[in-house]
Amino acid sequence: MEEGKGKKIAVVGLGLIGGSLALSLKHRGFAKKIIGVDASTINEDRALELGIVDQIESLDLAIKKSDIIVLAIPVDRTSEVLENVLDQIRPESVVMDMGSTKAAICSDVKSHPNRGRYVAVHPIAGTENSGPDAAFDGLFDEKVAIICDSIHSDSDSVELAMDLLGTLNMRMTEMGSEAHDLHIAYVSHLSHISSFTLGQTVLEMEKDEHNIFDMAGSGFESTVRLAKSSPAMWAPIFEQNSENVSRALEAQIKNLQAFKSMIDNRDKEGMHNLMTETNQIRRVLDGIILTKA
Amino acid sequence: MEEGKGKKIAVVGLGLIGGSLALSLKHRGFAKKIIGVDASTINEDRALELGIVDQIESLDLAIKKSDIIVLAIPVDRTSEVLENVLDQIRPESVVMDMGSTKAAICSDVKSHPNRGRYVAVHPIAGTENSGPDAAFDGLFDEKVAIICDSIHSDSDSVELAMDLLGTLNMRMTEMGSEAHDLHIAYVSHLSHISSFTLGQTVLEMEKDEHNIFDMAGSGFESTVRLAKSSPAMWAPIFEQNSENVSRALEAQIKNLQAFKSMIDNRDKEGMHNLMTETNQIRRVLDGIILTKA
Repeated sequence: MEEGKGKKIAVVGLGLIGGSLALSLKHRGFAKKIIGVDASTINEDRALELGIVDQIESLDLAIKKSDIIVLAIPVDRTSEVLENVLDQIRPESVVMDMGSTKAAICSDVKSHPNRGRYVAVHPIAGTENSGPDAAFDGLFDEKVAIICDSIHSDSDSVELAMDLLGTLNMRMTEMGSEAHDLHIAYVSHLSHISSFTLGQTVLEMEKDEHNIFDMAGSGFESTVRLAKSSPAMWAPIFEQNSENVSRALEAQIKNLQAFKSMIDNRDKEGMHNLMTETNQIRRVLDGIILTKA
Repeated sequence: MEEGKGKKIAVVGLGLIGGSLALSLKHRGFAKKIIGVDASTINEDRALELGIVDQIESLDLAIKKSDIIVLAIPVDRTSEVLENVLDQIRPESVVMDMGSTKAAICSDVKSHPNRGRYVAVHPIAGTENSGPDAAFDGLFDEKVAIICDSIHSDSDSVELAMDLLGTLNMRMTEMGSEAHDLHIAYVSHLSHISSFTLGQTVLEMEKDEHNIFDMAGSGFESTVRLAKSSPAMWAPIFEQNSENVSRALEAQIKNLQAFKSMIDNRDKEGMHNLMTETNQIRRVLDGIILTKA
């Protein structure tokens, strides 16, 4: 952590991710100053008010003044902003993004002369809430950060990024950007679509919300929690990872159709066997909790 | 609560639901004695060991000795056991079931001469764990209990059942058994199937579990939590409510297919609009939490 102390950090995008990162880096002494940039002046004002950032600047000025620039914006805006940052970045500064898709962005900047100053990061952390008011110090603690295509980053860039992620108390792992996008389609993007469509199905059926209030238990709440997530963040993710997500959805639809056939055929034994198989997810989830603790 | 004090209660089925109910009724002074009955002697021994029940009896003896008989067994066993209980029940005693489907069971005992002694109850409470070791005092606190077809129960039966549910600190509501099964297919049964198939899809794709460990976040954990649930409990529920659940699954599959089409067509705006619509689930979930608190 030593070499990072007292850095000037520009955070571009002052929502849940950018705001929480800013709070943690400031509170933990990694950042001397946090410069905020956001497309919305309402978010900028609110971030200042909440003490998430020390000052607001234009992107161009923020790039000039900062040792580290963190992009925490929707993934369909990232490549353009990232290229702009790489065009202007100081030779010893570093830029990181926080997006949930990695392959398209890494491909877009592959040939940029300053590619080495960029570190592609996906922090597996979030809540169903969004905006500066959702930000909190602690969001990233004990969570996993995936660094992608680090072979294309300068080694001192990666070191500085890891230093920042270490301050956030994250466990780090490395992966190619293509492999990242494939696997994340299954273990994250699919969960979000499943939750959104489940919310949709129930809302369409239950015009009278009192039935939901009265009858829904904690099971319903936990399966549809992600349906509260931000459309502005997720629509671009699904679009950018469309091929992998489409394949994951195809597999999920096939499995739902097979389950429906078992129900239609009153095949209790088939259902029992399939659910018993799937119960091994308990071991996997216990593994997640163990390895992350 | 007064008239219930010091009752003898038979609990048939000593798993999560029956065990938790027994613990709460004993700790809160409603039950003088808890008599346990289970198809498995291992469960019976464990329930005694854990102090969940005071003694183990055969079903026939338990019926003779008890003021209230609670059936907390898989729904495909309930009608047969319930008919047996109604054949032998004392004139002033009451039998309740705790199953997640209600229409078939209510229909099966509709013409029984002692139908009035039966109260059909669905407590909307549970966890993904099962067996006597999963039982705990407090499972039912602040949760909803749905009483079905109470018009066919004697009024003193309903009063005694409500007295018991009040001791569990449950909020009570009434509903026809057919309407219950229809709505619960959407707000509970569908969530469970969605979770099971999501677990299945990810396990099929990710043969190497390390990808799951490293990449899955809390979103994945919450959407697949229910995939840990007991197949012995759920297969009979899906079979017994097959028509409603099949229709709910059909709607869910249709919505997933529509989402997949938007992804395949890179229709970011369509996805954004649909997710914005579905975000209103936040208001519904807040309502659930508010009305239950």
